[in-house]
Amino acid sequence: MGTRKAVVLLSGGLDSATTLAIAGQGGFECFALTCLYGQRHDVEVEASRRIASAMEVAEHRVMTIDLAAFGGSALTDRGRMVPRAAIGLGPRAIPVTYVPARNTVFLSLALAWAEVLAAFDIFIGVHIADCGGYPDCRPAFIEAFEHVANLATAAAAEGRGIFRIRAPLLDMTKTQIIRKGIELGVDYSLTRSCYDPDEMGRSCGRCDSCVLRLGAFAELGLRDPIPYQNAHP
Amino acid sequence: MGTRKAVVLLSGGLDSATTLAIAGQGGFECFALTCLYGQRHDVEVEASRRIASAMEVAEHRVMTIDLAAFGGSALTDRGRMVPRAAIGLGPRAIPVTYVPARNTVFLSLALAWAEVLAAFDIFIGVHIADCGGYPDCRPAFIEAFEHVANLATAAAAEGRGIFRIRAPLLDMTKTQIIRKGIELGVDYSLTRSCYDPDEMGRSCGRCDSCVLRLGAFAELGLRDPIPYQNAHP
Repeated sequence: MGTRKAVVLLSGGLDSATTLAIAGQGGFECFALTCLYGQRHDVEVEASRRIASAMEVAEHRVMTIDLAAFGGSALTDRGRMVPRAAIGLGPRAIPVTYVPARNTVFLSLALAWAEVLAAFDIFIGVHIADCGGYPDCRPAFIEAFEHVANLATAAAAEGRGIFRIRAPLLDMTKTQIIRKGIELGVDYSLTRSCYDPDEMGRSCGRCDSCVLRLGAFAELGLRDPIPYQNAHP
Repeated sequence: MGTRKAVVLLSGGLDSATTLAIAGQGGFECFALTCLYGQRHDVEVEASRRIASAMEVAEHRVMTIDLAAFGGSALTDRGRMVPRAAIGLGPRAIPVTYVPARNTVFLSLALAWAEVLAAFDIFIGVHIADCGGYPDCRPAFIEAFEHVANLATAAAAEGRGIFRIRAPLLDMTKTQIIRKGIELGVDYSLTRSCYDPDEMGRSCGRCDSCVLRLGAFAELGLRDPIPYQNAHP
C-alpha cells in the first residue's frame, strides 16, 4: 500500500493552511489546488504559493476561473464595496462577500484533479462556527457534494474508490483553528485572509475576515504575525 | 410575473443546440453558457456562437476552464489519441473521451451564473440512450447535483426559488433528438460534434461522436449538413 493521495483546496488563508497541515498529519500525500476567481485575491494566491512550498506539498496547481464575469458578489465585483465588519448579522444571514456557488465550483475542480490523480480524499477548510451565513459551508452541503462525487466519476463508477469530502475544521471556531495549526507547526506569517488588502498586500484590519482573525489571535494572547495597513490594529 | 430565466449549457454540438430549442419552446428566456475546457474544442465554441446568435438567446457567455491542465482524457490531453468509433463497448464501459468531472464542473459554473441571474432552471443536453458509459450523464447524477444546487446557494437558502436541473434529452436516442430539433427549427448546419476536427474545422467522420451523428441522420433519411473531411462519409 502506497501513501494515500489527497487534493487540498488551498486559498492562501489561515483556514486552508491549517487544513493542509491536518491532511499532512493524517498521512496523506497532499496535492494543493488554488482557485483564482476574482480580482481581489492575488495576494492570497501569492500566499498559497508560499504555504505550498513551506509545507512541501507533492504538487501545487493554480487554476483561474473567471467567476467575476458572473458578478453577484462583493468579493469579485469591482463595483461593490467590501463592507467593514458585519459579523453579528445572525447565524443565517448571508454576507455580501458570499460568492455564488463558489465552493461547488472549487470542489468540482478538485474532484476533476482528484480523479486524474486517483486521490479519493478532498480537503476543504470550511467551518460554520464563525461563518454559518455561507450556505456552501454547511455539513448538508458537504455531504450532498460527496454524493455527487461518487456518482459523477468514472473512478467511483468503476469501483476504484469512494470519494470523501473532508472538512476537518467544520465545527471549530477561528481560535480553535489557530490553536490546532500552531500545534501542527503552521507558519501563519505566510497566510493572508483580508478581503481588501492594499497594493502592498497589507491587510485592512477592518473587514469581516480581518476582524475574525485578529480577534482569534488576541483570544489566544498572540500577535497576528502578518502586516496590517495601520501598524497593528 | 416576468418570463422565467434559464441557463442553458451550450457546447456547440447537436445535443445542446436541441436542448436550447426545447428551453426556448418552454417559454424560458435563455442565457447560454459555453465552457471551453480543452484544446480540441475551439470549433465547438465557434459553433456555439453561431447557434446562440441564430437562436437569439438573451446573453451568451464563454468561460474558459483549463481542465486540460489536469489531464486524464483523450479530449483534453494532446498526448492521447481520440479513438476511432468504439461504440459497442457495452452500456457501462467508460470511453477514453470521458473528461473527469466535466459535467460537475459545467453545472457548477452554470449554477454560479444562474444564481446571479435569479434563474432557477439549468438545462443540460445529456442523454443516456447512446452514451450510457459516461457516469455524469445518468439520472442519479442529475438528481444529486440538483440537491447540491439547493443546498449550495444563498438563493435557495433564502427561499427565493428552487433550482431544477433539466435534462430534456435524457431518454432520447440521437435520432429522436434530431427529429425533435428539426420540428423546432434547429439549424444543424451550425452545430459541430466531432472530437477530432481538422484545421479547417471539418469533422473526421470516424470518431464516436461523428459515427453516432451520421448514423442518426441516415436513419432519418437525411443528409448531415456539416462539412466532413472525406467529402461525405
